[in-house]
Amino acid sequence: MASSSPPPAEPAGAGAAGRPLPICVLTDYGAADEFVGVLHLVLARLAPTAPVVDLTHEIPKWDVPAGAATLRRLAPWLVPSVVLAVVDPGVATDRRAVALEVATAPGAGGRLLLVGPDNGLLLSVAAEAGGIARAVELDRPNWHLPQPPGAGATFAGRDVFAPVAAHLSLGVDLSEVGSPVEPTDLVELDFPGPVVTADGLSCAVTWIDHFGNAQLNAVAADLEELGPNPWLRLPGGAVQVLARRRSFAEIPVGAVGLVIDSYGRAALCVDRGSAAARLGLAVGDPVLIGPGPGAG
Amino acid sequence: MASSSPPPAEPAGAGAAGRPLPICVLTDYGAADEFVGVLHLVLARLAPTAPVVDLTHEIPKWDVPAGAATLRRLAPWLVPSVVLAVVDPGVATDRRAVALEVATAPGAGGRLLLVGPDNGLLLSVAAEAGGIARAVELDRPNWHLPQPPGAGATFAGRDVFAPVAAHLSLGVDLSEVGSPVEPTDLVELDFPGPVVTADGLSCAVTWIDHFGNAQLNAVAADLEELGPNPWLRLPGGAVQVLARRRSFAEIPVGAVGLVIDSYGRAALCVDRGSAAARLGLAVGDPVLIGPGPGAG
Amino acid sequence: MASSSPPPAEPAGAGAAGRPLPICVLTDYGAADEFVGVLHLVLARLAPTAPVVDLTHEIPKWDVPAGAATLRRLAPWLVPSVVLAVVDPGVATDRRAVALEVATAPGAGGRLLLVGPDNGLLLSVAAEAGGIARAVELDRPNWHLPQPPGAGATFAGRDVFAPVAAHLSLGVDLSEVGSPVEPTDLVELDFPGPVVTADGLSCAVTWIDHFGNAQLNAVAADLEELGPNPWLRLPGGAVQVLARRRSFAEIPVGAVGLVIDSYGRAALCVDRGSAAARLGLAVGDPVLIGPGPGAG
Repeated sequence: MASSSPPPAEPAGAGAAGRPLPICVLTDYGAADEFVGVLHLVLARLAPTAPVVDLTHEIPKWDVPAGAATLRRLAPWLVPSVVLAVVDPGVATDRRAVALEVATAPGAGGRLLLVGPDNGLLLSVAAEAGGIARAVELDRPNWHLPQPPGAGATFAGRDVFAPVAAHLSLGVDLSEVGSPVEPTDLVELDFPGPVVTADGLSCAVTWIDHFGNAQLNAVAADLEELGPNPWLRLPGGAVQVLARRRSFAEIPVGAVGLVIDSYGRAALCVDRGSAAARLGLAVGDPVLIGPGPGAG
Repeated sequence: MASSSPPPAEPAGAGAAGRPLPICVLTDYGAADEFVGVLHLVLARLAPTAPVVDLTHEIPKWDVPAGAATLRRLAPWLVPSVVLAVVDPGVATDRRAVALEVATAPGAGGRLLLVGPDNGLLLSVAAEAGGIARAVELDRPNWHLPQPPGAGATFAGRDVFAPVAAHLSLGVDLSEVGSPVEPTDLVELDFPGPVVTADGLSCAVTWIDHFGNAQLNAVAADLEELGPNPWLRLPGGAVQVLARRRSFAEIPVGAVGLVIDSYGRAALCVDRGSAAARLGLAVGDPVLIGPGPGAG
Repeated sequence: MASSSPPPAEPAGAGAAGRPLPICVLTDYGAADEFVGVLHLVLARLAPTAPVVDLTHEIPKWDVPAGAATLRRLAPWLVPSVVLAVVDPGVATDRRAVALEVATAPGAGGRLLLVGPDNGLLLSVAAEAGGIARAVELDRPNWHLPQPPGAGATFAGRDVFAPVAAHLSLGVDLSEVGSPVEPTDLVELDFPGPVVTADGLSCAVTWIDHFGNAQLNAVAADLEELGPNPWLRLPGGAVQVLARRRSFAEIPVGAVGLVIDSYGRAALCVDRGSAAARLGLAVGDPVLIGPGPGAG
């Protein structure tokens, strides 16, 4: 590291001072098997000094929209890094393997690269983080790992995505690992917002977290003029009066609160309890919200 | 890094040779969501070279006593570090956010700092590890992360505790991150020991581990003179004869053993099975133990 | 580290340029408790700069064959490292604690050391990775951690295996941490392959992964001449027609596929579903496979 000559120009894909970029990993692999361990071994082999940050490995299996939504929520906290994301029901089909570079504003905190399947998993976080500057299809096997002798099916996370993520972390340029792809040709998922109807604000449950909070596809601006006690119509038709509050702890005992959560999204919450269990809600469920007494 | 002049004095809060202190993390966040990932991203952003050790993220949700008990069990193995602990049912209420410095004896292995809510989570490990030297309330937002635009509720782990832990790891002094608090004003939990009654030793189940071992609030000295086959009265009144043994493997097939475990605590155990399931025990259950035949 | 004289010869047990070897950890500890955290703390104390790679901590409790099979599957991806493996139903009995050095061919990528109980957990990965060059019994307590005051039972992972793994990572030679043991005296598990019978190929289910794929103890060569639609006889006697395919995604909707998986093993699979649940299979179950129409 020490040198009497000026430091070399920073490699194109590497982090500060030529250090490897951190590699942030998100999968639907779960913890029961050694799948996450294998990814870490591949990264340790090819980029032994790159920091690795596990985002989560408990995306519901094959649930690309859930993985995309998780990455999207994480966007504001991502560090300059290579994001290695694998939720890949189409492994070994003709879905493309891709790597993307996010177009962050100069000085906005460095480079962000995304590696994974072209199934919509990566695009929403790229859009949140600044849009796509460049995209390539991972069609150059020399950057992949050889499969073990006798292997049939491909383990794309292990054999393709992790090796490419490691090389990008070390400073290999995106243009080396694959052929250019038009960003507009990539598969994109839709994250529709709420709809104002004659009956009220039609929302969808987008996430139920570990604590049972049910996040909706609405933000604070959507909830103006609902008053302190909006009503909520559940999928089955039952109606619940909500307490519009600033924090979980302000929700009265026994009540269901409507809170703007720490991500800036509307959420149905119960203090020290599961709103989702209480209301019988699952991800994807539609709910209707309308103004209660005292609404402006 | 290389320098021809003497190394600078070690920053007050940093580890050996000015390196960042490791950050040890314990939460009730679970693995299903990206909550742990977000904490790691905040630490990676603010203290990118600090080692991070996950203690556990599976404290039962909102269970402050369980979190405090876990930290207390871990006390003898903690390295000089910043412990970032978040089990926080009162997030966004007026419970205080605090950071503590543990008063370890000189030469005892370095500095130990604790960051988390003032709800009793931190005090038992501080007491085990040497007592509190200094405490501050985290009332200086310049050391916190700004919330994302439009966010309502605070995610204190992400926005307050993790950033402060990162800064302390880098050597920022405790006095900079908050206003002094009297250690005696901090919320403390009670960890009562067993009680000698006319009927026997009245104990409580304090922990049921992954293997089904049921740890009690008693140590070896409490169990003297019970003889090789003490009796155990369960919450429902049923009585069980125990085998007092040195290790799990010495418990006779089919028997329930009473063992001093690897933490120095009394535990009810079955060889290669769950004593808790066998006896129908849960954390907090009271049990009574008395001397059996052959007792001294 | 800095020196004006030539660098010393690399320590016997250390990695490239005298850096600590990574430590790869596999246990049956689960995530609910702080057990994994304690191992990490011991490694952080004794080998603070050694990279730690968690392989998995969800081996079913006390299931030595499952742990051995997992390590065996991982063998092709292991980096030069110390593997710390603890699945140890016989803790505190007279089962030996051992450390092994794998005899990798020169230039094959460096050194591989294995630390754990002598119960068969380590031998299959050693065999896969190149055979055992040296073995020692961990009978020298000066390399272990003292138990905490008042502790009874030993927590071998924490007190014996992790400290020894840390010392080996730092370059301590195997001969220092214990007395030599004949490799042929170590406990070995049997991993029998399939048997050709008059009725068909008699296989066993060796692994059911997170996605419900059921791996068998057969490789591609065992399945030649089965044709595109082999039959499968389940433990209960029911017979299922299989689709012999190259990848999960090629399995027709509604069919059960027979695929050579990414480990080179035969596996029963359903596209985006659980073959194990569909067929009612568990690890260890016997199945019979035979040639269907069109077989060669």
